[in-house]
Amino acid sequence: MNRWIIRCFLCICFETLIFQLNAQNFEHPTVGAQVFIEPGQQPEEIQNWFKILQAHGMKVCRIRMFESYMRNEKGEWDFALFDYAFKAAEEHGIKVYATLFPATPFTDIGGFKFPGDKAHLQSVSEYIAAVTRHFSKYTTLYAWVLINEIGSGKIPSTPLSQELFNSWKVKNPQMTNNANGYPIMPFEDEKFLIEHNTWYLQWLADEVKKHDPQRHLHVNNHAIFDLAGEYDFSAWQSILNSLGGSAHASWHFGYFNRREYAHAMLANSEIIRSGAGKLPWIMTELQGGNNTFSGFHPMCPEPEEIIQWLWSVFITGGKSAIFWTLNPRASGIEAGEWALLDFRDQPSDRMKAAAQVSSSLQKHNEIWKEVKPLSSGIHILYTRESLWIERKSQIGAPGFPGRAPGSVMQSALGYFETISSMGMQCSISCMDEFDFSAEDYSGQAIILAHQIGIPSRHYQSLSQFVEKGGILLADGLTGFYDEHMHNAMKTEKPMQKVFGAEIKEFKFENEPFAIQFSNLTQPVPVLGWKGLLSLTHAASLAQEHDQVLATKSRYGRGSALWVPTLMGLAARTEGKEALSEWLYQELNNCIETNPVRFAHYIPEVLMTTAKTEKGFLSMVINKRITNAEVPILYNGLKGKIIFSNKEASFDDTHRLLRIHPEETVVISWEEK
Amino acid sequence: MNRWIIRCFLCICFETLIFQLNAQNFEHPTVGAQVFIEPGQQPEEIQNWFKILQAHGMKVCRIRMFESYMRNEKGEWDFALFDYAFKAAEEHGIKVYATLFPATPFTDIGGFKFPGDKAHLQSVSEYIAAVTRHFSKYTTLYAWVLINEIGSGKIPSTPLSQELFNSWKVKNPQMTNNANGYPIMPFEDEKFLIEHNTWYLQWLADEVKKHDPQRHLHVNNHAIFDLAGEYDFSAWQSILNSLGGSAHASWHFGYFNRREYAHAMLANSEIIRSGAGKLPWIMTELQGGNNTFSGFHPMCPEPEEIIQWLWSVFITGGKSAIFWTLNPRASGIEAGEWALLDFRDQPSDRMKAAAQVSSSLQKHNEIWKEVKPLSSGIHILYTRESLWIERKSQIGAPGFPGRAPGSVMQSALGYFETISSMGMQCSISCMDEFDFSAEDYSGQAIILAHQIGIPSRHYQSLSQFVEKGGILLADGLTGFYDEHMHNAMKTEKPMQKVFGAEIKEFKFENEPFAIQFSNLTQPVPVLGWKGLLSLTHAASLAQEHDQVLATKSRYGRGSALWVPTLMGLAARTEGKEALSEWLYQELNNCIETNPVRFAHYIPEVLMTTAKTEKGFLSMVINKRITNAEVPILYNGLKGKIIFSNKEASFDDTHRLLRIHPEETVVISWEEK
Amino acid sequence: MNRWIIRCFLCICFETLIFQLNAQNFEHPTVGAQVFIEPGQQPEEIQNWFKILQAHGMKVCRIRMFESYMRNEKGEWDFALFDYAFKAAEEHGIKVYATLFPATPFTDIGGFKFPGDKAHLQSVSEYIAAVTRHFSKYTTLYAWVLINEIGSGKIPSTPLSQELFNSWKVKNPQMTNNANGYPIMPFEDEKFLIEHNTWYLQWLADEVKKHDPQRHLHVNNHAIFDLAGEYDFSAWQSILNSLGGSAHASWHFGYFNRREYAHAMLANSEIIRSGAGKLPWIMTELQGGNNTFSGFHPMCPEPEEIIQWLWSVFITGGKSAIFWTLNPRASGIEAGEWALLDFRDQPSDRMKAAAQVSSSLQKHNEIWKEVKPLSSGIHILYTRESLWIERKSQIGAPGFPGRAPGSVMQSALGYFETISSMGMQCSISCMDEFDFSAEDYSGQAIILAHQIGIPSRHYQSLSQFVEKGGILLADGLTGFYDEHMHNAMKTEKPMQKVFGAEIKEFKFENEPFAIQFSNLTQPVPVLGWKGLLSLTHAASLAQEHDQVLATKSRYGRGSALWVPTLMGLAARTEGKEALSEWLYQELNNCIETNPVRFAHYIPEVLMTTAKTEKGFLSMVINKRITNAEVPILYNGLKGKIIFSNKEASFDDTHRLLRIHPEETVVISWEEK
Repeated sequence: MNRWIIRCFLCICFETLIFQLNAQNFEHPTVGAQVFIEPGQQPEEIQNWFKILQAHGMKVCRIRMFESYMRNEKGEWDFALFDYAFKAAEEHGIKVYATLFPATPFTDIGGFKFPGDKAHLQSVSEYIAAVTRHFSKYTTLYAWVLINEIGSGKIPSTPLSQELFNSWKVKNPQMTNNANGYPIMPFEDEKFLIEHNTWYLQWLADEVKKHDPQRHLHVNNHAIFDLAGEYDFSAWQSILNSLGGSAHASWHFGYFNRREYAHAMLANSEIIRSGAGKLPWIMTELQGGNNTFSGFHPMCPEPEEIIQWLWSVFITGGKSAIFWTLNPRASGIEAGEWALLDFRDQPSDRMKAAAQVSSSLQKHNEIWKEVKPLSSGIHILYTRESLWIERKSQIGAPGFPGRAPGSVMQSALGYFETISSMGMQCSISCMDEFDFSAEDYSGQAIILAHQIGIPSRHYQSLSQFVEKGGILLADGLTGFYDEHMHNAMKTEKPMQKVFGAEIKEFKFENEPFAIQFSNLTQPVPVLGWKGLLSLTHAASLAQEHDQVLATKSRYGRGSALWVPTLMGLAARTEGKEALSEWLYQELNNCIETNPVRFAHYIPEVLMTTAKTEKGFLSMVINKRITNAEVPILYNGLKGKIIFSNKEASFDDTHRLLRIHPEETVVISWEEK
Repeated sequence: MNRWIIRCFLCICFETLIFQLNAQNFEHPTVGAQVFIEPGQQPEEIQNWFKILQAHGMKVCRIRMFESYMRNEKGEWDFALFDYAFKAAEEHGIKVYATLFPATPFTDIGGFKFPGDKAHLQSVSEYIAAVTRHFSKYTTLYAWVLINEIGSGKIPSTPLSQELFNSWKVKNPQMTNNANGYPIMPFEDEKFLIEHNTWYLQWLADEVKKHDPQRHLHVNNHAIFDLAGEYDFSAWQSILNSLGGSAHASWHFGYFNRREYAHAMLANSEIIRSGAGKLPWIMTELQGGNNTFSGFHPMCPEPEEIIQWLWSVFITGGKSAIFWTLNPRASGIEAGEWALLDFRDQPSDRMKAAAQVSSSLQKHNEIWKEVKPLSSGIHILYTRESLWIERKSQIGAPGFPGRAPGSVMQSALGYFETISSMGMQCSISCMDEFDFSAEDYSGQAIILAHQIGIPSRHYQSLSQFVEKGGILLADGLTGFYDEHMHNAMKTEKPMQKVFGAEIKEFKFENEPFAIQFSNLTQPVPVLGWKGLLSLTHAASLAQEHDQVLATKSRYGRGSALWVPTLMGLAARTEGKEALSEWLYQELNNCIETNPVRFAHYIPEVLMTTAKTEKGFLSMVINKRITNAEVPILYNGLKGKIIFSNKEASFDDTHRLLRIHPEETVVISWEEK
Repeated sequence: MNRWIIRCFLCICFETLIFQLNAQNFEHPTVGAQVFIEPGQQPEEIQNWFKILQAHGMKVCRIRMFESYMRNEKGEWDFALFDYAFKAAEEHGIKVYATLFPATPFTDIGGFKFPGDKAHLQSVSEYIAAVTRHFSKYTTLYAWVLINEIGSGKIPSTPLSQELFNSWKVKNPQMTNNANGYPIMPFEDEKFLIEHNTWYLQWLADEVKKHDPQRHLHVNNHAIFDLAGEYDFSAWQSILNSLGGSAHASWHFGYFNRREYAHAMLANSEIIRSGAGKLPWIMTELQGGNNTFSGFHPMCPEPEEIIQWLWSVFITGGKSAIFWTLNPRASGIEAGEWALLDFRDQPSDRMKAAAQVSSSLQKHNEIWKEVKPLSSGIHILYTRESLWIERKSQIGAPGFPGRAPGSVMQSALGYFETISSMGMQCSISCMDEFDFSAEDYSGQAIILAHQIGIPSRHYQSLSQFVEKGGILLADGLTGFYDEHMHNAMKTEKPMQKVFGAEIKEFKFENEPFAIQFSNLTQPVPVLGWKGLLSLTHAASLAQEHDQVLATKSRYGRGSALWVPTLMGLAARTEGKEALSEWLYQELNNCIETNPVRFAHYIPEVLMTTAKTEKGFLSMVINKRITNAEVPILYNGLKGKIIFSNKEASFDDTHRLLRIHPEETVVISWEEK
């Protein structure tokens, strides 16, 4: 028992991430909403919206600062409409995230991501000057959101972007071969796009600072599961005061079905939390209401989903969650969609649900003001290079999901979902965000799920992670390429020493199959390529006839597991239970240090846990259509439900949570 | 009983549409076919085709006046081939609809819709001059078809169209806000395209009139269910002497499966009839034969279908139905397709079927020469703006049919098909074509099925329609937007007074569901959004828990029904019987005034009725694969079958029609 | 019996195709592989690959002569890497097919098909000069492969191609009408593309010959089933010394499922064999290993498939079969894919399978060195024009496979597969390749399966083929058009005399149906159009009510069969047994002269036979998942298995072959 406590303690000390100043200087995380301001609205309407926010415990809002609605055809500024909104915000104690939104066509609902030419850039500069000079006077103005939903998918063909790309090419002459002489894929587009985003973000920040130097700066990325390859969050940390994201179920959760949206929100939150580093983070946009024509998968969120999403943001350390939108646009594309209020400005069931969460935060203010993310010790890492390569490789018909765009991220998500349903937190980070500088990684694990490109700059750090006690787990085509799309696995074999094995070959299988690990009771379903391994010092974990399909090696103080087959991806379609059994087996080291977790994998139920001043906070969601009885493991703690939106009950004696379909429960754990 | 007779009489007086001079001055409607003239054909062949037409009772034909086949490479005209055809027509008493067809590439099978530049326009002018001067001498030349299948789908990027668009923009400066200040969607492309079509039609008419001022002018639109949003039939009425359409099952009936093509032809006919206004109308193109590579849904019409289509055109007042084609093209795309004659110039079973109809028309000449459309009092209205908005809104993946292009028209068709299978005529008109000027609309109903854009110019007329005794029925997202894609339902709520209710919100449902009206025995299947209503003076018709899903209000002398859910669209896939029950309930007022109708909804059987001098004419089609026994309601009439193509029998005592699969029956009703 | 022997003898004399000098001057056909040479590779690796080739009995290799890897940024040549490879080849007795591969972007994995402009052409010329001058000194250099995978799909929009197209148009003024005056489809793009390919091939040959005039010249086409319409093999015969092809299952066999890949390889081989004429032919590329991102249908070949493919090439007369690749590329697209060796340069099971075949060839050297293709007398002909028309006709939605691109080739393949499973060779040739000059075609049959365009230049030769004793069999829309997409069947009816019938009309049927031939026990499944025939002198073979669906006519000494319905295409999806019964019936004349064949159609088992010095060689493949017992008919021969890769046994007494799933057997037959 001693051993357990020590490990647990070490883990908490080591892993608890540094807590940041609460972004809005509130006492606890806050719920908010976008107040959509557009001409045609009456002062009393605007006034009323802020009154409603206040009445529902919302303390922040977001306002899009449409240049088109502030400037007439002669180019004269008229801020009256927005002044009215700011004053109303001030009167009702609502902090404002003001989103810069320079003039763009009426049909461009998201805004341009880069100015088209220098004149356009100049015009953006003038817009920023006008807007920041005018609105910086409002004390209720909390932050400038520098651009709405940064992230483009590709380099625009416009003159400014092309000119900058050309300059970039001059400064970054293309290498055609690597150090060993092998030809390399230059990935110029991908590298430039990352820098181009960062350049524009910095430019916007600089422009704002000319006129409003002290204000909090924020940006929200979007479509994280698709666009993660073009975001350099680490570089943005010095530009911003907080990081955010748009996480709209109907637009952004295409890799998930509706019953999996809770997992999706949690994963999205973890990725942004990781990207924020030491900065605070918030969920800048959450879907507030119904879709008519928007969304790839149209929906109207249920109040239960609103509650699930909000707690998912807060339990992972988000300081705010702002719905898109309070009131709907009245015209054009998106008109009448997305809102928390109905067409009569009455609160929908979703708004009431959000208020329930606000009220709980307020009530448990003392607990929530000190909440810090708690790491389970399990880290899923993705590499941007894998996402680039995946797209660059689309030369045949994808045919099966393991080689379609999305296979890299979905492989990672397969593990994330499994671990969440084992009742544990699990981080998802870009490999470049991971802290490889510690001295001891005991009780830590890194999962590389079908990360097809492992940049050579990380070979050493990954090796050392294992040397220093960590567990490294690789599946699928992880490490097939390096950052240059060079098939290092064939040539330099940089990870062979760590894994104690090398690939003989991959063989594509048209149908899902299964791997029988020798130490498991059930076969693990897998997909796509069967990787055949040749052992050096590793031990075989699974064989088919005389072919080794999985290995485990001791290396330094740690160990490295290799299953060169799509195990994470297959879990999403073929079932996760067998994978969880394997993870319990192989990551036991990390798992047992978790202060709170499920007694076993519970399909469609998920839990994640954070650290409070006096103990822990766990959020549990039941996505089943039936009640669930959830046995929870913990030690030296006493749990109490502090939020539930149905009739959940927790039996501390039997350590059993009873939770209803679609219910969310927040349990506060204090030391006994 | 008296009351019934009076209503019936009123209805007939009021609703019988003004009868036009028979377009071709024939004694009755006529069947015809396109004689496809192209080089390579021998005089005796051409002669023979006209002889065949005559022998099969066909009195009209259509000839495409290919400039390419009348002018050699030096630019010299040689009309010999076409002269031969005109002479043959003259000899056999066949009137000619001559289609202008200026030179276009051989692969362009339908012809260009706008000249590319001014030189091209000039060249068209010269072609028209040459052709009209030469052929106007033929007395058998009945009409010029100004352009083949007007309707483009979009504005061409060619210089002439773009130049005219630019001028148009100068004359029509873009409004960015509505009267209340709200931003608006300008729909410049859509508005210009409508005017551009009308402009070119007028230009063609003017060019023809320079040389042949007295000739009948005609045009055929096409793909009506898709392109209705770009046709301004009302504006064309002053240019044309008759209106027509192409209704090719394999190209244009994509919203229907083959068993529904009879409904499709009837609906297509109703739309063109409405568009023609007081002008005569004809079905300018009907599919005559087999497809090889043509058609989105290739087929070879069965003789039974030929008969169904012809009677559908004639019962709705069409003066002619012209098949595409008599003889097939011999070369290129479409070669060997579409024809009524086989490869040996022998009549196919389709040709014989058409001749059967011709012969019946001839035989019942006295009845048919006085046939006038008879309105059931039920009017389905569509708005062009709904069609524009539907396409403009395609920003997500359509995903489900209620927001895919076609949802607006298919919602309307759901009602049309249901009412046709209740044995009643039902008109389908553009809202701008509807006569809102009457003083009394008792016994009249307007159905607005998912008409997402209701132009503000019609708010008052729709309100007055109800005030003056009409029944207004709205389903789906009807009225969600105004003509500017402004969400008037959220702001001005222009129809709230009439409906006695307002929308709380729409909630998207992923799966079909059902509404249980309190006064119906069965739930009505619906789709997509669940509209929640808040009552002012309306009564609730259907509720789910405490949410109102449908309302009925008394307003003036009429009433307004609102079911803000996709009921018409759902009827098409989920079943129409429940909808028919609801219509019997709510439109009883209109229904009971119909002199002839089915005793109840009869799936896959349809009937529509016209007025004759002495009584009525009904067409009944059985699309079932089994015999149908059809109970018919009527009063003071005596019915007699005057056409049937199988062994139908009508029992006047039991008022029961026995009709075979795919059979078409025409019943003549005279007063007892 | 005498009669049988004489026929058989005649058949062999007449039909045995002229045997060419063994291309590589080896004693027997050889297996080889592409050695992929790229910078980064170490001399010892390269050395080792050639050693491996030698050790596995491989006597040829292919090397891609990357200009990009031979020339530095200053334009200086450095041949060292490739010199090393050539020396290693020389040392190990491996002949080299060196593929010209002028500089192209790293992402262009297949190479450009035409230079973009004149400067580019000049640069290719310089590259060829440098490379041929340098490498012609190696005696081991066997052949120059002039371009990798000739064949583009369409004319490039680049300046050089467009300029040459424009010149071509001047020299080939477009005809707009045929001799009878009918309009025609010019097919300029298609005709030019054919000539453009041939022009560039000739240009490349001329450039090579300037510097290395005596070397063997070769080219490999690819995607034969798709691109056959743009290859003029006959014209290439004077440019090349041998013809080849790429036949990659994952890229090129999209018309087949995996169980049908053996049929696909055999068909691909037959087409190239026919194209080669009197030249030797080889299969220049065969898939050697696993796909990750390549291939429309990714796969890793099983060793059994490797064996099936190799014997399919050799039994049809191929002199070599060269795998793509021995070792995988190490970088970029295709990295780590396709190889026979694993990542440790160890032979895969596929490599071992290939070596098994090599070893058998070596062992039975005496037999194989004299193998000549043996014709069964059955010839499937395709026309390029049919392939052009098929693509030009795509104006509707294809909807059903009979009018989708591929219907022409798949119709032919339906017969090929059926005949192969009747245990007989069957050639597939472009109609222009067929020798119509013989005096007697008794025992010969031509199958025209849905060949929608029959060029008028062949009307007479096809007629004479029948006159001179041949059997002509036409199905589907064969002959619907001539080479100008003129519907000759409607007008000139050029084949009416031969077929003794003419088409009344085609009627499209939406669902598969069946034709009951009066002389068959079972109905034959068919698809698409039902062609109704009118008889002149032919006899009816099948009727539906009073409509004739199939005819047979005597004409001269032969006969002509016409089933204007998709019988070959339907066989592929609806079953081939009934078709085989019909072929046994109608082609008995040809079938009985085959010295060796199955006793009846055996689904999923195939056999083809070649002539040896002393008898015959048959290859049998069992694609079933169960053992097959295969009764074989032969006469005066004694058979012996000389290769089998499982435990096949042949019982000469009962004339029964027992063969295991996926097994390939080679039987040598000698006269008793």
